[in-house]
Amino acid sequence: MSAPSAIAPAAAQRPVYARMALLGLGLIGSSMAWAARRGGLVGEIAGHARSAATRERARELGFCDRVCDSPAEAVAGADLVVLCVPVGAIEAVMAEIAPHLAPGATLSDVGSVKAELIAAVRPHLPEGVHFVPGHPLAGTEHSGPDAGFAELFEKRFCILTPGDEVPEDAIARLAALWEGMGSHVERMTPEHHDLVLAVTSHVPHAIAYTMVGVADDLARVSDSEVIRYSAAGFRDFTRIAASDPTMWRDVFLNNREAVLDILGRFSEELMMVRRAIRTGDGDWLHAYFTRTRAIRRGILEAGQDTDAPDFGRLGRPGPKR
Amino acid sequence: MSAPSAIAPAAAQRPVYARMALLGLGLIGSSMAWAARRGGLVGEIAGHARSAATRERARELGFCDRVCDSPAEAVAGADLVVLCVPVGAIEAVMAEIAPHLAPGATLSDVGSVKAELIAAVRPHLPEGVHFVPGHPLAGTEHSGPDAGFAELFEKRFCILTPGDEVPEDAIARLAALWEGMGSHVERMTPEHHDLVLAVTSHVPHAIAYTMVGVADDLARVSDSEVIRYSAAGFRDFTRIAASDPTMWRDVFLNNREAVLDILGRFSEELMMVRRAIRTGDGDWLHAYFTRTRAIRRGILEAGQDTDAPDFGRLGRPGPKR
Repeated sequence: MSAPSAIAPAAAQRPVYARMALLGLGLIGSSMAWAARRGGLVGEIAGHARSAATRERARELGFCDRVCDSPAEAVAGADLVVLCVPVGAIEAVMAEIAPHLAPGATLSDVGSVKAELIAAVRPHLPEGVHFVPGHPLAGTEHSGPDAGFAELFEKRFCILTPGDEVPEDAIARLAALWEGMGSHVERMTPEHHDLVLAVTSHVPHAIAYTMVGVADDLARVSDSEVIRYSAAGFRDFTRIAASDPTMWRDVFLNNREAVLDILGRFSEELMMVRRAIRTGDGDWLHAYFTRTRAIRRGILEAGQDTDAPDFGRLGRPGPKR
Repeated sequence: MSAPSAIAPAAAQRPVYARMALLGLGLIGSSMAWAARRGGLVGEIAGHARSAATRERARELGFCDRVCDSPAEAVAGADLVVLCVPVGAIEAVMAEIAPHLAPGATLSDVGSVKAELIAAVRPHLPEGVHFVPGHPLAGTEHSGPDAGFAELFEKRFCILTPGDEVPEDAIARLAALWEGMGSHVERMTPEHHDLVLAVTSHVPHAIAYTMVGVADDLARVSDSEVIRYSAAGFRDFTRIAASDPTMWRDVFLNNREAVLDILGRFSEELMMVRRAIRTGDGDWLHAYFTRTRAIRRGILEAGQDTDAPDFGRLGRPGPKR
């Protein structure tokens, strides 16, 4: 296990970059634009989205200084280019922009998987362009240019997975941008990132999708009953399972090994839980359910979730300590 | 599949009951007391809890008119007795109070399982006492007398599963109490209740506990990493998996058949998802993830969850429609 290491961001000079190009203007791209704009972190923001409707909407919303009709135009002269497209689209976009990247520019991305994404980018990477892969651990179940907002990255982690060949000052500069948007920046290897994310994100999403799929499939319990009585627990799974299907298809196709590994462990563990239920082993179940409480406590102590009952849906504060 | 049927509550007379006895003063018992008090729904509230510390705390909080040191004292003269203890404790409490129940009184409970609970209660039920089992689909991950509040049941469903022998007016009266506390009241058979809840609550909890158990178990990803990066999806599972261990042990031991049935279906479905990931079947995954989105939409349209991003944890409203 390689522990993540903190990165010392570059001294706070503003703007951090003269021109940032965002390729993809969905939830993450538009939020980066709002956050960078709020903090005065970049001189100019050029954006591009593949769909004409998204470009049109982005122009109306006004989070970019320029919304360009081609990716080549957006990246021209940019000292930071961030790929904010689904992982499966990365290679095609990369092939298209590579000839237009400025020497000395930093190239980054926001993809939820790293090893396979890096393998797709690297063959197209021009000499003199610094590739610093990134992954902000932030998002909501909403997607598209309307879903973005400046506060999305606040107090969230952003993981950078640069190779050894990247100059430290290029890494520190990108870290300064993310810190300026409110994030805590960490560094780890692409492989460790993919395993950590399989546990904390990819497998939980696979399981939530599966649970919702089962409910949708049962003939003996109607859809309207599932919906009506969902507050008893099920609805928490449906939020996760309402996330963008394209993004998640690409995550599973591109982090296959780690996801299958952790899903295998999950299935094993589920067998043990099923066995304890079947054999009526109350002591085992009670001990198991007590142990899992401690992790929740750790998350609350780390400030990574709210202690308000039901995620604060009830409009009530958490208990007094 | 037997569809649930709505119950017409009795005409709104206040108080609905002259004296309500609550056995068990945890999250649900204390919330019932606050809600009944707020609505002027009962003349007097007598409470009992097994633990002296809970009784003491309940006296300080003041949600009961009287906190009694024995269950017999609490139920004496009550025209409504509600068992708010864990399902596994129901039979012992029932045996203890049975000789003290007033003829014509209504006996109810708030247990998350119904068929086995009814089987445990019935042998002890005195002649002339109307047993109307109930299950409010409401709760939070917090427990104990401090966790209760008057609004817990608002807009939530309460399912009643009385037998055919119970007079309709006794059922309508209990329904009026729950409606007065803000709930929608439904009626179904105990067996159908147990199946519906296995899908919407018990299996989701089993899966959340298992996912948290897996994360806790991995040597290759440290606890601190799981906690640090939990906002990427995992933390949603930990809230559910922080629920009361005793309550959940009893749920699984007492709704074993339906839970194992749905867990079996879940495991089957998970095999299909794993297979699609392993074989790289992107079309299948995309279609699957698109289908599960529709259920989320239904839950939002039914007013059973918030559309604010991330359950409103970010303090932002839902998207404009």
